[in-house]
Amino acid sequence: MSCYTYGQSHRSEALKLIKLLLFITIIFNAKACMAQDDDLSNLLNPLASWRNGPAKKSILKFVFAATDKTSPGYIPSEQRIAVFDQDGTLWVEQPVYTQVMFAFDRIVSMADQHPDWKHTQPFQAIIERDKVRMAGFTSLELAQINRVTQIGMKVGEYKKAVQDWLAKARHPRWNRPYTDLVYQPMLEVLSLLRAKGFKTYIVTGSNQDFVRAYSQQVYGIPPEQVIGSALSLAYIFDPTVKGIFYRRAPLLINNNSGKPEDIYLFIGRAPKAAFGNSTGDKQMLEYTQQEGKGSLMMLIHHDDALREYHYSAKSRIGTFSDALMAEAKDSGWMVVSMKNDWKTMFPFSKPPGVLVG
Amino acid sequence: MSCYTYGQSHRSEALKLIKLLLFITIIFNAKACMAQDDDLSNLLNPLASWRNGPAKKSILKFVFAATDKTSPGYIPSEQRIAVFDQDGTLWVEQPVYTQVMFAFDRIVSMADQHPDWKHTQPFQAIIERDKVRMAGFTSLELAQINRVTQIGMKVGEYKKAVQDWLAKARHPRWNRPYTDLVYQPMLEVLSLLRAKGFKTYIVTGSNQDFVRAYSQQVYGIPPEQVIGSALSLAYIFDPTVKGIFYRRAPLLINNNSGKPEDIYLFIGRAPKAAFGNSTGDKQMLEYTQQEGKGSLMMLIHHDDALREYHYSAKSRIGTFSDALMAEAKDSGWMVVSMKNDWKTMFPFSKPPGVLVG
Repeated sequence: MSCYTYGQSHRSEALKLIKLLLFITIIFNAKACMAQDDDLSNLLNPLASWRNGPAKKSILKFVFAATDKTSPGYIPSEQRIAVFDQDGTLWVEQPVYTQVMFAFDRIVSMADQHPDWKHTQPFQAIIERDKVRMAGFTSLELAQINRVTQIGMKVGEYKKAVQDWLAKARHPRWNRPYTDLVYQPMLEVLSLLRAKGFKTYIVTGSNQDFVRAYSQQVYGIPPEQVIGSALSLAYIFDPTVKGIFYRRAPLLINNNSGKPEDIYLFIGRAPKAAFGNSTGDKQMLEYTQQEGKGSLMMLIHHDDALREYHYSAKSRIGTFSDALMAEAKDSGWMVVSMKNDWKTMFPFSKPPGVLVG
Repeated sequence: MSCYTYGQSHRSEALKLIKLLLFITIIFNAKACMAQDDDLSNLLNPLASWRNGPAKKSILKFVFAATDKTSPGYIPSEQRIAVFDQDGTLWVEQPVYTQVMFAFDRIVSMADQHPDWKHTQPFQAIIERDKVRMAGFTSLELAQINRVTQIGMKVGEYKKAVQDWLAKARHPRWNRPYTDLVYQPMLEVLSLLRAKGFKTYIVTGSNQDFVRAYSQQVYGIPPEQVIGSALSLAYIFDPTVKGIFYRRAPLLINNNSGKPEDIYLFIGRAPKAAFGNSTGDKQMLEYTQQEGKGSLMMLIHHDDALREYHYSAKSRIGTFSDALMAEAKDSGWMVVSMKNDWKTMFPFSKPPGVLVG
């Protein structure tokens, strides 16, 4: 269905005027409204926390091509989908995933109702704070620990438990809330992509409802744009019990091949940009590259022991194998050096700027 | 985070000007651009295809309260979620769900590769067009038929098969494409809710990827806002085979309790408005009512044999039991009479209006 030229030319004049006024409105508010400062300075000086280099350049090149109708890299607005792994890509995942930290504390607080845990592993180790045993938990044990803190709970109660915990818990190294430990350069990528019409999604191996409890506040991402691992749900509507509860059976295991599968399940099409940091993100990046010419694939490389962590190929959390590095090189994925590409690590370590108070 | 008054008053003046200009732009285009006519006339005269009566009044009351900050029915914009069943709520579901019509034709076209189907039920009945046997298919048989048309296919190939079929297939009664048989009054509800900041979702017992193949074009709803029944997926990335394929195992059965469960799985919160027409929508309406005060629950009642269909409590498709009617009455859900509440049934039966050419 098309418009007559008559209507279009009038509209286009009026639209220009509206855009101008909108710009003036933004400028008027720039100094008065702190909340808008970050978005504005990110538009005026995009990716300010990134050092000039191939990584920053590739993001800017991708974004500007995506929004330029004359470019071969142009992406129609309804296809502007960008996906981000969370742990190790948007925030710190060491010494262990934040969701696991939550589960450890939750097991301790649930111990009174489960006297058998005092002599049943893996719970006994957590209750006794047996750090050697805890550091050696298998992934099956970690999955069991995570599930136990959810099964049978009402979804809203779980959300509240996560939010209450986040308000009090502190990261052992920085002694700050875990939600402070987000990477400032990645917040700028999220904000830039959204300003250019991208829908930004988190695609996480962590429990989907754990991340949804804070995603809007921390990343500006609403719950429906968080895809993660999930237990089956049970809707109950009895005279005495009403609501949605977590069942025992896992429904989604959102890691490795699960990432592209769940992206298709939730979104129904492939992303045009994908950001990850570990072997669990490999398939998501492959899928993004396979489905769209000119898409952007990026791996965050943890090589900054001073400001964050320096991973080795043997790291249990955030596995970054030599094979993955080789695939990145062969496939033309951009590898981001946190040490060299990022001027600033966290929002709280941001240097004071002209507009940023 | 709040703005200083200085910035706000400037912004508010500029915003008023922008709104005025936007209005002028719309008016300029109103007569020139057919595509915009429907949206505009829907804003100037909302729900024009609805007769004045309690159903229309309850929708308008809900929408205006939702967007009025001083009203007890005010809904913050991030919570404006509205869910719609599809079959029998947004489009015709008789004599059988459109997805099943597609599957019947697909079985016939696949028959050459499956010689055993000639003497295996339920396929034999479809190949022989045995209408008596076909009318008696059990729900298990229908599920088997649906699955067979998907299992092992690449997701993109399935989508193309659906779109190719929709372009050629015709409804037996109206001899029109199935996508013409959407209810004009419901298109107006979708459009009005979106104009008021609601995110509109389809929550369908039909196969999610079937509906996603046309949801944007037919309802203005993007694929990520379609939640439906789904098979498990398999992501394969071999040197010779790459892509996402349908597995044999069902993952989501999006009917009855599955509707609220999948709404929470996908969206992470409860809707504020829910529209359905059958017992399969009961739990979705209960959930919407349970979770939010002042939410809108609506049941479309098929009582118009002349313009559409008159269902009885015995209908196999679109089950509308006496118990459901009683629950609607007890719970204060609005029951819409298609015969009395709707002036116009389909877009193609719309009378010519002043703005609508």
